[in-house]
Amino acid sequence: MIPSDVLDQLATQAIELPSWAFGNSGTRFKVFSTPGTPRTVEEKIADAAEVHRLTGLAPSVALHIPWDKVDDYAALRSHAESLGVRLGTINSNTFQDDVYKFGSLTHVDEAVRRKAIDHHLECIAIMDATGSQDLKIWLADGTNYPGQGDLRGRQDRLADSLAQIYDRLTGDQRLVLEYKFFEPAFYHTDVPDWGTAYAQTAALGERAVVCLDTGHHAPGTNIEFIVAQLLRLGKLGSFDFNSRFYADDDLIVGAADPFQLFRILYEVIRGGGFGPDSTVAFMLDQCHNVEDKVPGQIRSVLNVQEMTARALLVDTDALAKAQESGDVLGANGILMDAFYTDVRPGLATWRESRGLPADPMAAYAASGYQTRIESERVGGTQAGWGA
Amino acid sequence: MIPSDVLDQLATQAIELPSWAFGNSGTRFKVFSTPGTPRTVEEKIADAAEVHRLTGLAPSVALHIPWDKVDDYAALRSHAESLGVRLGTINSNTFQDDVYKFGSLTHVDEAVRRKAIDHHLECIAIMDATGSQDLKIWLADGTNYPGQGDLRGRQDRLADSLAQIYDRLTGDQRLVLEYKFFEPAFYHTDVPDWGTAYAQTAALGERAVVCLDTGHHAPGTNIEFIVAQLLRLGKLGSFDFNSRFYADDDLIVGAADPFQLFRILYEVIRGGGFGPDSTVAFMLDQCHNVEDKVPGQIRSVLNVQEMTARALLVDTDALAKAQESGDVLGANGILMDAFYTDVRPGLATWRESRGLPADPMAAYAASGYQTRIESERVGGTQAGWGA
Amino acid sequence: MIPSDVLDQLATQAIELPSWAFGNSGTRFKVFSTPGTPRTVEEKIADAAEVHRLTGLAPSVALHIPWDKVDDYAALRSHAESLGVRLGTINSNTFQDDVYKFGSLTHVDEAVRRKAIDHHLECIAIMDATGSQDLKIWLADGTNYPGQGDLRGRQDRLADSLAQIYDRLTGDQRLVLEYKFFEPAFYHTDVPDWGTAYAQTAALGERAVVCLDTGHHAPGTNIEFIVAQLLRLGKLGSFDFNSRFYADDDLIVGAADPFQLFRILYEVIRGGGFGPDSTVAFMLDQCHNVEDKVPGQIRSVLNVQEMTARALLVDTDALAKAQESGDVLGANGILMDAFYTDVRPGLATWRESRGLPADPMAAYAASGYQTRIESERVGGTQAGWGA
Amino acid sequence: MIPSDVLDQLATQAIELPSWAFGNSGTRFKVFSTPGTPRTVEEKIADAAEVHRLTGLAPSVALHIPWDKVDDYAALRSHAESLGVRLGTINSNTFQDDVYKFGSLTHVDEAVRRKAIDHHLECIAIMDATGSQDLKIWLADGTNYPGQGDLRGRQDRLADSLAQIYDRLTGDQRLVLEYKFFEPAFYHTDVPDWGTAYAQTAALGERAVVCLDTGHHAPGTNIEFIVAQLLRLGKLGSFDFNSRFYADDDLIVGAADPFQLFRILYEVIRGGGFGPDSTVAFMLDQCHNVEDKVPGQIRSVLNVQEMTARALLVDTDALAKAQESGDVLGANGILMDAFYTDVRPGLATWRESRGLPADPMAAYAASGYQTRIESERVGGTQAGWGA
Repeated sequence: MIPSDVLDQLATQAIELPSWAFGNSGTRFKVFSTPGTPRTVEEKIADAAEVHRLTGLAPSVALHIPWDKVDDYAALRSHAESLGVRLGTINSNTFQDDVYKFGSLTHVDEAVRRKAIDHHLECIAIMDATGSQDLKIWLADGTNYPGQGDLRGRQDRLADSLAQIYDRLTGDQRLVLEYKFFEPAFYHTDVPDWGTAYAQTAALGERAVVCLDTGHHAPGTNIEFIVAQLLRLGKLGSFDFNSRFYADDDLIVGAADPFQLFRILYEVIRGGGFGPDSTVAFMLDQCHNVEDKVPGQIRSVLNVQEMTARALLVDTDALAKAQESGDVLGANGILMDAFYTDVRPGLATWRESRGLPADPMAAYAASGYQTRIESERVGGTQAGWGA
Repeated sequence: MIPSDVLDQLATQAIELPSWAFGNSGTRFKVFSTPGTPRTVEEKIADAAEVHRLTGLAPSVALHIPWDKVDDYAALRSHAESLGVRLGTINSNTFQDDVYKFGSLTHVDEAVRRKAIDHHLECIAIMDATGSQDLKIWLADGTNYPGQGDLRGRQDRLADSLAQIYDRLTGDQRLVLEYKFFEPAFYHTDVPDWGTAYAQTAALGERAVVCLDTGHHAPGTNIEFIVAQLLRLGKLGSFDFNSRFYADDDLIVGAADPFQLFRILYEVIRGGGFGPDSTVAFMLDQCHNVEDKVPGQIRSVLNVQEMTARALLVDTDALAKAQESGDVLGANGILMDAFYTDVRPGLATWRESRGLPADPMAAYAASGYQTRIESERVGGTQAGWGA
Repeated sequence: MIPSDVLDQLATQAIELPSWAFGNSGTRFKVFSTPGTPRTVEEKIADAAEVHRLTGLAPSVALHIPWDKVDDYAALRSHAESLGVRLGTINSNTFQDDVYKFGSLTHVDEAVRRKAIDHHLECIAIMDATGSQDLKIWLADGTNYPGQGDLRGRQDRLADSLAQIYDRLTGDQRLVLEYKFFEPAFYHTDVPDWGTAYAQTAALGERAVVCLDTGHHAPGTNIEFIVAQLLRLGKLGSFDFNSRFYADDDLIVGAADPFQLFRILYEVIRGGGFGPDSTVAFMLDQCHNVEDKVPGQIRSVLNVQEMTARALLVDTDALAKAQESGDVLGANGILMDAFYTDVRPGLATWRESRGLPADPMAAYAASGYQTRIESERVGGTQAGWGA
Repeated sequence: MIPSDVLDQLATQAIELPSWAFGNSGTRFKVFSTPGTPRTVEEKIADAAEVHRLTGLAPSVALHIPWDKVDDYAALRSHAESLGVRLGTINSNTFQDDVYKFGSLTHVDEAVRRKAIDHHLECIAIMDATGSQDLKIWLADGTNYPGQGDLRGRQDRLADSLAQIYDRLTGDQRLVLEYKFFEPAFYHTDVPDWGTAYAQTAALGERAVVCLDTGHHAPGTNIEFIVAQLLRLGKLGSFDFNSRFYADDDLIVGAADPFQLFRILYEVIRGGGFGPDSTVAFMLDQCHNVEDKVPGQIRSVLNVQEMTARALLVDTDALAKAQESGDVLGANGILMDAFYTDVRPGLATWRESRGLPADPMAAYAASGYQTRIESERVGGTQAGWGA
């Protein structure tokens, strides 16, 4: 049985879906296509809405510009709302134009850098139209060979570019800077770690915060420590949830190391990053190379929900007492006790009480949705990372 | 001054170029195209021949099937020979067909597995036509999620598939099995380490050997130890040279950790893997995402040559003496002494004495070759990983 | 509810405890002592017996020579049996003598190598006296600097040393060779990976097998794959269970990545490594630097038992079906379903039905054992890695 | 030939030696003792002075408190000065007292935390007496198991402790905070990364800076990027030089990856961290487990000098031009050109011109110093990490 105060807290949980999770994706070796893959942003939103309909967990959809560019954002907004979801974070893209081969916001050529800044200003204009709060910047900038670029100069230019973008924000709009350890650049990336994202956003101001992508760290990194630190510094803006074993970072959240996800969520709660008073946004950033996309997203939000439930079950009073008395095994045992609790039956019952399917995965399989999109979405160009 | 016996040994060095190094490549995020990129296998071979013309180091070109498929291999062979190079290793490809989504030689579906085996038999037929000795198998097979596949069953099917392929070899043809730590599969790969490649090839027989790709190991792995071990076991078939920092494995050989390359080459020589009596094949397996391709290949073969020269300079008698007496600093110093020796002037002089340009990079820049291919190779489809 | 056939299989489980887990341990920075730490091997065995008394899981104790050397092994055997446990694996030690500074079984000096071989022959004589089946060899041999040793020569000498030791085994005695990625040597270790342990033991014969220590791999290594492979090759002799985050390998098994432990145990069962017909030995190899030692061991064997229970719960028929049909999410879901099942209440009930405490950790705390040893074990020298 | 402006810059280089490098050290498995090992801090300083005498590179010695505690620091200072060196950085130690088992500056028990703070105040008093400028704090604080400690609370207490210490500094004294990825704690360390060290020192004020130990990062980390970033932020206080392959961090600087050391030094110079106007302190922090200690230190400072020379040779104008024009191979080639230049003959000549031995390693071997200390330093207790 899950205590009602835990369920009450879970009721506030919202996890944003990435529109690109519904398109085709893969590796440099091969992108496999899937029947039913959306051809348009409207179809992506429809798929996201289906995830929300079955889970009650995913009320918003992040857009990726230019992949999700449309002429009429008001219409897109209405389309989303008619399906029961809203438009969320706007993600910029400065990695697919030929001019960005050697960088974008860090580029040594002022014309290229201008173009990259302007792209972000365009994204903010889209935010104005969609009502989105967050501009998320993940930079592909970096180099493949020592000497190829000037690390220091690139960092200075990045600071200047970000300042120009930040200045354009209005109201409660935020600039969210994501860091990534490696890829697509292999020698250095210009925002490789939380320290850099912190230093850069601290220099900008209060509405500049950090996005922690759970797959973007060196092996062995204690990610929950970074969560605790960024919350302490007031700079944790959002999560990109996913998982990985050695590398690539796009597996289903919780699939590679569920205990790590638990520890991360425990620190989120511990540090005030969960609940109505928190401004920390939860998002998925994954791709589904070999598995079906809509149920892949359902599985993902359920993983986050289940693990949040476990993290909320931790007996924090007992834990504090054990920690203070140096009872290593006792303290660890209290954490593990929550982790090993099977919250799934309790959540199923609770879901039903809220008019949701007890088992959203089974409900999806039974819904006929997959069959319908496979038969309806014929012709056109399936969405992928290029469109 | 480089001693003449070292130069004599260097004169025997040959490094095979991969045809795909001349085509476009990139990451899942973006493949940048380059002016002058070959449209046909004939143009790839022409580029490879240019590398050989300037360095005297690259007398053969590896082909990738189906990317380099032609109707008339005898004609292709003549084309290569007319340019001063020959056709080398045949590389199979079972990762770009939709049916291979869940595996090829390991696939649970016998029809798919049959198709993958047959592809390799076709490759052997091509070897018969091209006079190639080695069939190199790099398997993309693997899974992304625990439970997705049966690790044990896949390994057994792999053994059976390889046996069927091995049985088809004739004469001195070899099956060379490559291992790779991760990618494109992210949870498990079916040939992830040298142990697996060794166990599988040992079960096949003498003409099955292992390909060591220098970029395919976990961080911290002592690669030169594996070199020493495989040579000791008589199973080191060939090298795929390249380098990497954290991951991707396709940077220019020696670019990320030149000292590691030196140690590898030292163990190659130490274990009898270098010289006329050795059957170890040296190949590049790299891509040039952001740098020019032809000079990228020139730089690569020069790196291998220069580092081989340094490795040949090690005073092995003094080293053995220092090792035997427990003189740690002395022994290490003898190795470092060779590594820090600047062999470049000596090699430049020697190259000139052999009718080669002293500085092949400068010679290429001055040759007008790049300008010519950029103006000639207009229209058509640039070669890349899909073609 | 745990099905009775699963409980029946669990009833056969035995996990050997290492005598050194009860002594003090730590890092190069500091070894903290603990009240109640054994001063003698007899006291270590008493502690191990207490773990077995409360869990029914740990019927044997591994000894470490020379730390656990006694004059009368028959008496030690009787002592153990009187406490309800038996003596298990004999672990050799060639890393604490000054002569082994540059190696032992691989040493270039024949006198040192002879001494190291003789030490192992002495261990076998002890096995004859204790009735132990396994001689476990973990080698600290390696080098800290490139050039310090001759990798190839060391490997050849290792092969010769092992052959001399192997020849001395009688009856069903086994030589179990452990591999370790790094430490205490930092440039190379002479048995760094499963491939080396496999190649060396394969050369010896059937009674030479491999010990897989779960903490001895590079980051990102898929350990369950190695389990599957070694079982397939008939060479998985035993496990040293423990866990680690980045490095050191001596945390409580299951503490760092419980899901990994689950996957490992799943492959053990899948490959026939569990149950009465299997010869795979389960052992702990851990230390308790900051936590209490006896409950640390109790927690450890319970972790293995609980995770084995989960692994036995996997619906293998459904899994095979999902795997065969390419249902990635379904197959993964079947595995996760078992992992997320809370087996603890069922195991508690079952324990009671077998006359064991439902909660061995609580039972230990209530037993007064810790208080007793703390008051009794005063004076003398606490056991540690040096004694 | 090395240009004279490069030699002029090299003439200003100073590398501080750690007193503990001359004592015995090892791993948790074994500490090997060496003939001639100092028994007192005075003997350690004598050894350090010998390194300086032969290299002209090591004019100061760092002390470790309490290992190097004496009654009369004025006398110690005179002793050092009489040998031609001065006393440098004071290193605190809060990892060897039993009370620090669960932390020091982060400890939840105010009494323990007070003791740890007071230890640092004592260190500052010693700095006043020795004339040392820097208080270096490397914290062993951390936990081994999830739940063992409260990550957030520990960080807050750390901030408070550091503030109390910082407040006590006078004049140009600095607090230098070191970060370390792991060890001796294995689940989390309280100052694991540069981001944490930066955030903590930025909160303190201008005279709080960061110590970058080259061995304290996750695998794959681009360390030179951190160098560039910390210099940019004005927070790079000092280096602890050493090297490592996978882990431990105490090998001779430049031994594991000389090219990485080159890149680090290049960024130091690029960012203004080298030369008379820089406040960045260069130190060694290594141990010599298996090699002789005095020549181990000589080799180390020479490695830093040689690599600094190479880094100073980079043609920065040509590099900037190549970077600006997107000439990847050209830019990389310019860097590699400097790296591959053999500066050793030029440095040997220059050393002689300054009254130093051309080959300090050979000069040490010929000096009889080792023989003398081996015969003189008999009896007493050899220095090590406990004393």
